[in-house]
Amino acid sequence: MAADVDVDLKSLVRTIPDYPKPGIMFRDITTLIGDAAGLRSAVERLVEPYRDANIQAVAGIEARGFILGGAVAEKLNCGFIPIRKKGKLPYTAIGQDYELEYGIDVIEIHQDAIAAGERVLLIDDLIATGGTAEAAAKLLRKLDANLVGAAFVIDLPDLGGCARLASLGVKCHTLIGFEGD
Amino acid sequence: MAADVDVDLKSLVRTIPDYPKPGIMFRDITTLIGDAAGLRSAVERLVEPYRDANIQAVAGIEARGFILGGAVAEKLNCGFIPIRKKGKLPYTAIGQDYELEYGIDVIEIHQDAIAAGERVLLIDDLIATGGTAEAAAKLLRKLDANLVGAAFVIDLPDLGGCARLASLGVKCHTLIGFEGD
Repeated sequence: MAADVDVDLKSLVRTIPDYPKPGIMFRDITTLIGDAAGLRSAVERLVEPYRDANIQAVAGIEARGFILGGAVAEKLNCGFIPIRKKGKLPYTAIGQDYELEYGIDVIEIHQDAIAAGERVLLIDDLIATGGTAEAAAKLLRKLDANLVGAAFVIDLPDLGGCARLASLGVKCHTLIGFEGD
Repeated sequence: MAADVDVDLKSLVRTIPDYPKPGIMFRDITTLIGDAAGLRSAVERLVEPYRDANIQAVAGIEARGFILGGAVAEKLNCGFIPIRKKGKLPYTAIGQDYELEYGIDVIEIHQDAIAAGERVLLIDDLIATGGTAEAAAKLLRKLDANLVGAAFVIDLPDLGGCARLASLGVKCHTLIGFEGD
């Protein structure tokens, strides 16, 4: 396992200039998770700080957060809870809105997904401004979850997402950062 | 590990009557993957037939196929390839359309996601008519992948999905079935 930690995850991220619009450097994680050692190392390193944290559920944010979240839940021997875009969950759900650059979006979680007090780890592929992660944290707290932390492969620290989560009392764990984004 | 196989996966699936429309019995897998033993057992049993099959990539279908696909890829020590709804992949992608009840939808894969001849396993949560899985198989073959098999947690055999894949030469592996759907 030690060898996995040596994988240079940053070099496995593909940068796509001017996507989805001019001036944005899009950090594409599909090349990292498409690489056997990259995927294995990312999962290992996401899990590492929480191995003895008695995590009872991993919540992942649609859609890329599902890829890593399922594997992290399996490794931590707990269940996986999907947080989805509005209207995608089949059972009774509660929602939380969050601001986009132009407009408002909503994410949802099943109302019975988490028992009060359960120790939950939030997972997504990337944290930028932290708007979606903040909404996910609020959703989990509406269910009285004990949000132990939030882990992301990629951090764009200039956009302040982890600081935003810290102001809510949620501690971030990130594997690699791209500054100047 | 043997104990995991004894988990009654079927009892962990929640059935939601009349969703998304009257007469449909929706098989909700979120209760199964939200259960620690259920998730662990499902991943274990999806992986089992392919343990020595030299799988080089796992392709998962958005969005629920991502949850299981990432964990299966990690277990098989290979990379994960997302197959997504149109317009969701950031890099050059190829598409494949498929028929819905009313209309046509398109799924896409990154053009460089798979090398020619690579041994690929397709993963999704459920197979019904097999329309999406057939489109995914066609996409993988456009990239000259060697599609070794397709694995699903839930089969609705009355809808003929596995027979449809068999007619394309793709062998299905499913864990549980609901008849009369």
